[in-house]
Amino acid sequence: MTALGELVAEGWLTARERQGYLVSDTLPSTFFTAAAPPAAARAGAFPWAFARGPEPLPPDEALPYAFLGGTPDLRLFPTAEFRGFLHAALKARPEKILGYGPPAGHEPLRAELRTYLRRMRALQDRDLVVTHGSQEALYLLAQLLVAPGDKVGVEARGYRPAWEALRAAGAELVALPVDADGLDADAAARAMGRHKLKLVYTTPLHQYPTTATMPVGRRTRLYDACLRHGVAILEDDYDHEFHYRCQPLPPLAASDPAGLVLYVSTFSKVLFPGTRLGFAALPPPVAARLAALKRVTTRQNDGIAQDAVARWMRDGGFERHLRRMRRAYEERRDALVAALERLRGRGLPLAWRVPDGGMALWLDSGGDAGRIRLEARARGVLVLPESAFRLAERGSGGGPNRHLRLGFANQTPRELELGVKRLGEAMEAAR
Amino acid sequence: MTALGELVAEGWLTARERQGYLVSDTLPSTFFTAAAPPAAARAGAFPWAFARGPEPLPPDEALPYAFLGGTPDLRLFPTAEFRGFLHAALKARPEKILGYGPPAGHEPLRAELRTYLRRMRALQDRDLVVTHGSQEALYLLAQLLVAPGDKVGVEARGYRPAWEALRAAGAELVALPVDADGLDADAAARAMGRHKLKLVYTTPLHQYPTTATMPVGRRTRLYDACLRHGVAILEDDYDHEFHYRCQPLPPLAASDPAGLVLYVSTFSKVLFPGTRLGFAALPPPVAARLAALKRVTTRQNDGIAQDAVARWMRDGGFERHLRRMRRAYEERRDALVAALERLRGRGLPLAWRVPDGGMALWLDSGGDAGRIRLEARARGVLVLPESAFRLAERGSGGGPNRHLRLGFANQTPRELELGVKRLGEAMEAAR
Repeated sequence: MTALGELVAEGWLTARERQGYLVSDTLPSTFFTAAAPPAAARAGAFPWAFARGPEPLPPDEALPYAFLGGTPDLRLFPTAEFRGFLHAALKARPEKILGYGPPAGHEPLRAELRTYLRRMRALQDRDLVVTHGSQEALYLLAQLLVAPGDKVGVEARGYRPAWEALRAAGAELVALPVDADGLDADAAARAMGRHKLKLVYTTPLHQYPTTATMPVGRRTRLYDACLRHGVAILEDDYDHEFHYRCQPLPPLAASDPAGLVLYVSTFSKVLFPGTRLGFAALPPPVAARLAALKRVTTRQNDGIAQDAVARWMRDGGFERHLRRMRRAYEERRDALVAALERLRGRGLPLAWRVPDGGMALWLDSGGDAGRIRLEARARGVLVLPESAFRLAERGSGGGPNRHLRLGFANQTPRELELGVKRLGEAMEAAR
Repeated sequence: MTALGELVAEGWLTARERQGYLVSDTLPSTFFTAAAPPAAARAGAFPWAFARGPEPLPPDEALPYAFLGGTPDLRLFPTAEFRGFLHAALKARPEKILGYGPPAGHEPLRAELRTYLRRMRALQDRDLVVTHGSQEALYLLAQLLVAPGDKVGVEARGYRPAWEALRAAGAELVALPVDADGLDADAAARAMGRHKLKLVYTTPLHQYPTTATMPVGRRTRLYDACLRHGVAILEDDYDHEFHYRCQPLPPLAASDPAGLVLYVSTFSKVLFPGTRLGFAALPPPVAARLAALKRVTTRQNDGIAQDAVARWMRDGGFERHLRRMRRAYEERRDALVAALERLRGRGLPLAWRVPDGGMALWLDSGGDAGRIRLEARARGVLVLPESAFRLAERGSGGGPNRHLRLGFANQTPRELELGVKRLGEAMEAAR
């Protein structure tokens, strides 16, 4: 009787007094035929046009020697130590961190971040929003600020995932020139007037991909121009921690009296990328809107991970890890430079500036970087040419493609040496 | 010399041969004055208009008795058991789960989910994308499918965060009537013709907020109408696991020969919300686009959490937990009903249908639910009235506001009893 009652409730049967149960006559006849779809439909052809969003990409290549610029060496991560903090997080207050929390982030983590950013990056008077990597911060800020057709200035050689986030909001990107001192502030100022830019996206500390540091004079001229033209600055400080000469220059956001700098950063390089921990440090009205938008997109970051990282920072383990990694990456940079010097000694026309910081070196190959990439791939070496970082503008012929970006952080000195040797063979073959 | 060299590199000083180091003359004079901003600017008034995004909301209220519908009881979560799987995840292959993974989700978790969804929900021939809760799936699908001005049908009493996600993509929402059998398929079919709907958003299993289950006949009529009118279905199956009579009806997505159902669901109710684990099961072309968009928004879900949950599912611990929770919540539903019966016995004009599943009961208070909410709040009881779930349409007068949604999952039978007692006092006071 319970089973029959359930079938009635679900609409399969109808109960008729004194007659018993009958198959429901409200079931349309198509119900019974729909169970055997045509083969083409089963393949799942979804018959709608898409309103937005990028085309799917092929999966990332995996090669034995990968000169990837943005990936820390996860083999050096103190997994056992971090596991202890995950353990403590789950043990101490499971309800607090398993349940819904504030979209702007778990308060203990925000408090640690606030202290850290004030001490290490001179940032204050800003509200923090924890995000899924800097990518979510970039994406949501673009959604908040960019209406379809708005023009956004970006570095002519730059960070493609940021461009995709801006384009997803409908931005028209305008290429701003980059030189050995990073974004050209005066050219940017002229473009602001000519194109009525809404926003400028920049990576002042270690320009992506060229690793150039923008000097203070240029920083001030860029800031003043933005203030004059009413342009907001989206500052991406993606690897502030790794600077080898000294304490790096503070970000633009550290002296922003007019509140026009939107600062985003990430822990993907200093922690690990898989947990997607990034943040934005913003003028308070923007932070409130960002948190409100985050509430309807991903709601919040993982509570366990946020609490564990807060504990790790409070304990000091985070900064000990940073110091270890800084030493390791500096050693790797030097190993890469030494290996490149050997190649140059063998007659390859290479040129570079040793980067003061960051996790990559911008190498002038003296040849065709596109051909070198293909020859390198055939030898198990993954390396990205200049053209991969170039904004393709309508009518542009493409421009030079001599440089390679060589990430050095995720390989040991020995691996770098072997990779560079193969890369040298690829360069010989591509000449 | 190193320090002076650094100051030159950063642009503070200029080195002149035979003269020494001079303060750089390229520093604009404003650089030195900008350090002392006016008080108003320090408050961080960001001078731009926002292009999109909802207004910030006040923070959620915390009251001793909270009849929240979507929150599991985290006190019942087997924290120690789950910690073991987090531990195993981090120990076994740190590089794999700490690094970047596929935007569509960690493959071992997708494999477990695939098996689980085939067995428990009759879903197959679909591609899975892991998301930050069902909310990210809803938001990204809306971005993919809805262009500004597109009309989307939603349940007239429904799930507000889904509406916000649709609105963020520019949707104009059209209210479709809901009755004791859930969304009215025939009314929806008429609206499709009249408004040229692009998409219908629905919660067929336990209609949110009324908990009604849509019978099979109505499901088929809805599907056929969508097929006829070229309307996609966004099916939100938010608490499939909690059905107390028997195995619940399979989702619309389980018999979707034409590939027009976009299925989203979440583990927030069965696991915990703080880790933001949800997923979409989609026709393959939509899944590929969703993953491509996710790549530029949040990139991927937390690797550690995904691996731990995959291990927990493989071990069978996940289903053991589900069975325990199903029993606990059924007991709580019965405790709530018993407490309401006592109130009704004391003369309050209450009416309800005992829900077959879900984590909430839809109560006809026989009075003014808005006034009851205020009286309840004064007594430490958080309860949401019908009006909180109603789509406000232009020109609509608001309509009746007699119902309350009473979540019963996150309180013990004893807590429910005490909460209902206070709610009864509030109802008396509001009469």
